[in-house]
Amino acid sequence: MDKNILSIIKDRQFDDLQVLFAHMNAVDIADALEHSDAAAAVEAFRIVDERISSDVFSYLSADRQHAILGKLSDNEVMEIMEDLSVDDMVDFVEDAPDDVANRVFEAVSDEKSEIVDRILDYPDDSAGSIMTTEIVELAPLTTVKDALHTIRTSGVDKETIYTCYVIDDERKLIGAVTADTLLYSRLNESVGDLMDVNIISANVDDDREELATKFSKYDLLAMPVINRNDRLVGIVTIDDILRVITEEDTEDFSKIAGVKPTEVPYMKTGVLAHAKSRIIWLITLLVTAAVAGIVLGVFEDSLEQMAILVAFTPMLMGAGGNAGAQSATLVIRGMALGEIVKSDLAKLIWRETRIAIICAAILGLANFARIFLMYSGREYTVTLAWVVSLSLAITLIVSKTIGCALPIVAKQFKMDPAVMAAPLITAIVDCAALIVFYFIARSAFGI
Amino acid sequence: MDKNILSIIKDRQFDDLQVLFAHMNAVDIADALEHSDAAAAVEAFRIVDERISSDVFSYLSADRQHAILGKLSDNEVMEIMEDLSVDDMVDFVEDAPDDVANRVFEAVSDEKSEIVDRILDYPDDSAGSIMTTEIVELAPLTTVKDALHTIRTSGVDKETIYTCYVIDDERKLIGAVTADTLLYSRLNESVGDLMDVNIISANVDDDREELATKFSKYDLLAMPVINRNDRLVGIVTIDDILRVITEEDTEDFSKIAGVKPTEVPYMKTGVLAHAKSRIIWLITLLVTAAVAGIVLGVFEDSLEQMAILVAFTPMLMGAGGNAGAQSATLVIRGMALGEIVKSDLAKLIWRETRIAIICAAILGLANFARIFLMYSGREYTVTLAWVVSLSLAITLIVSKTIGCALPIVAKQFKMDPAVMAAPLITAIVDCAALIVFYFIARSAFGI
Repeated sequence: MDKNILSIIKDRQFDDLQVLFAHMNAVDIADALEHSDAAAAVEAFRIVDERISSDVFSYLSADRQHAILGKLSDNEVMEIMEDLSVDDMVDFVEDAPDDVANRVFEAVSDEKSEIVDRILDYPDDSAGSIMTTEIVELAPLTTVKDALHTIRTSGVDKETIYTCYVIDDERKLIGAVTADTLLYSRLNESVGDLMDVNIISANVDDDREELATKFSKYDLLAMPVINRNDRLVGIVTIDDILRVITEEDTEDFSKIAGVKPTEVPYMKTGVLAHAKSRIIWLITLLVTAAVAGIVLGVFEDSLEQMAILVAFTPMLMGAGGNAGAQSATLVIRGMALGEIVKSDLAKLIWRETRIAIICAAILGLANFARIFLMYSGREYTVTLAWVVSLSLAITLIVSKTIGCALPIVAKQFKMDPAVMAAPLITAIVDCAALIVFYFIARSAFGI
Repeated sequence: MDKNILSIIKDRQFDDLQVLFAHMNAVDIADALEHSDAAAAVEAFRIVDERISSDVFSYLSADRQHAILGKLSDNEVMEIMEDLSVDDMVDFVEDAPDDVANRVFEAVSDEKSEIVDRILDYPDDSAGSIMTTEIVELAPLTTVKDALHTIRTSGVDKETIYTCYVIDDERKLIGAVTADTLLYSRLNESVGDLMDVNIISANVDDDREELATKFSKYDLLAMPVINRNDRLVGIVTIDDILRVITEEDTEDFSKIAGVKPTEVPYMKTGVLAHAKSRIIWLITLLVTAAVAGIVLGVFEDSLEQMAILVAFTPMLMGAGGNAGAQSATLVIRGMALGEIVKSDLAKLIWRETRIAIICAAILGLANFARIFLMYSGREYTVTLAWVVSLSLAITLIVSKTIGCALPIVAKQFKMDPAVMAAPLITAIVDCAALIVFYFIARSAFGI
């Protein structure tokens, strides 16, 4: 953030500010307002060119938006809200306190408030909740000339102009035509002849993650959204999908690390909220780890007889946990990208087992050599070496199988695969590793 | 995948196939060709409508592309390659064997092969390597009418038509004007008056991850790319950025799980390649875990005296590893999104320390209660409870501090922060946890 502009805002040098703002885009202006003192920011907001003021407004944080709105006249509120695209207004109203939301609903036209209301009704992660309703709709018999005129006079937001949708008398979606097709075609051709009829569309209830997968697969810039009666009701654009992908990936990163996802960025989340989002898993792990402790406790006698065995437990548990986490994370990611589906379970286990056998053979041999060299000269060296190596190999195979299977099993029980990530896998594999190790050790050493 | 179409391709029922293809988009046709027998796929490819054949070609895997190209005449190769957008041709040539690449270069115009050659020269992760050169360029004095005519006759690919760039006599970028602005404006206005001069552009050498961050921040659909002399050389579009984000996130998921990232999807990677990408970290962990084993070995005597202590090592190591992984993963993700920067180190450590203290207090107390109840009635119960709880609390604080700091330190040494993810943190924290525990235990119990 440029310190200069912050001090200009702070000192309320509004003439200078106006010159500066003229050379800045909406995002950077919002950034400056966000980082300056609240009272000055409200005043500075009034200086923003009205052509971009609603844009600037949409990039502000909820706090700042509410502060600014509180100081504006009803007329000013109306202007900003009418300029705001439907999806930005939905975002704003969703987080606003009731009185602010009511004031906004009163300020805008009945038509707009009805649309916003309807979108707010869709479930949080659905296509309906992220769509905008600003679409250029054409009839099949419209000519290119009329279509261009419609676009020119519609005043529809830039995001959605690129593709125009063709609907029949019942508002059912029958085709799509892109702006470049219109521009490249003769003016007297009809839209119905030019339109693409193989359209990929979404249903209002579709999950937004599935939408993102389709956007990537089909290289789309926009996707029309239809309701249960096949009527065109809105459009989802690629910039919203970009946000969905980033949010969903961030959520998966959190889950894989055993952190309850929050929607707020790291630096804006308070210390207490951070602690809360992490303590749940840490406590769960305390419980599962206690089980591993109990397993160790069962072998207390064997350990007292042969304390050297303890030296290998961190390695066995670590290798198991990590091997399991590798498989689980790759499968979770593959499922998120739609590359791995539920029916792949058997194929996946077979694949991971073979991978595990290769890794197990290499690690087992490396480990055998290490123990043989490091503990040479003791009477039990060779036995110790093969006991640990065999345990390591079995642990790896068990971990990788569990690691790849659990995310898919979770999905089959309609749970989020990412819940089966590293922390849980580690806890399960820890116990498995210990049990394998001590059973082999006990029978080998007769303790 | 629809089984019906696969059997139609297999049986070479080309008349039926033609009807089917007419109702399918390029991605689905490519999908069908991909999943059918290679020889039949080559023949079926010839039936694809020539308006989308280069599109279909671009969605095929490298193997299938080579197989098809081998069967086509020089003329057919030329047609496909000339229709292929520059970035798709770059993708193809990059992975092609030398003889195939040479054949392609000979088939296309000198102009196109020069452009492709130049793009291939840019470093792999740079803006230059993902840009396309198909841009509509306008002069500032051009009228809207002429600009629309230029767009209409340019035949530029759909992706890039949306924004037109305005350049001066020296090809320096001076502004941008969107297709909708042109459509909304009077035909005799000049582009120079309509253009936006606050353009966010990239340099050919910029890192593609930084580009992705800018696209998200500024809600862009396209970004112009300039060379070292400020001359406009290309454009990066949002669909390429979508791919970059997905790839980079997948890479980070792999690294966080201790897997060397590959560019090939999970199911298409061979078992050997999978094993290879995982064995490196597993072996590294074997070595670091051996260090933890050595630490345990040093305390062999104490352990033999008080084997019950061993029962708590899995819990301490597990909690430490997970607490560290939580912090590291969140910081790595925050850095990838540009929310956390190098200069945040001190702020970050202070933040994570406070989070850690809260978590440590809660977990420490919970653990004290658990041990007090589970091991009640022994003479050393209270001492044991506070020894383990204090060790747990210290381990948590150490892990979180190390976990949040290492990714940033890595970045300061120009390393990838994601390398400092869970596996390495776990290894470090494991040793730390053991050392803390046994020092406290030894002095408390005098063993």
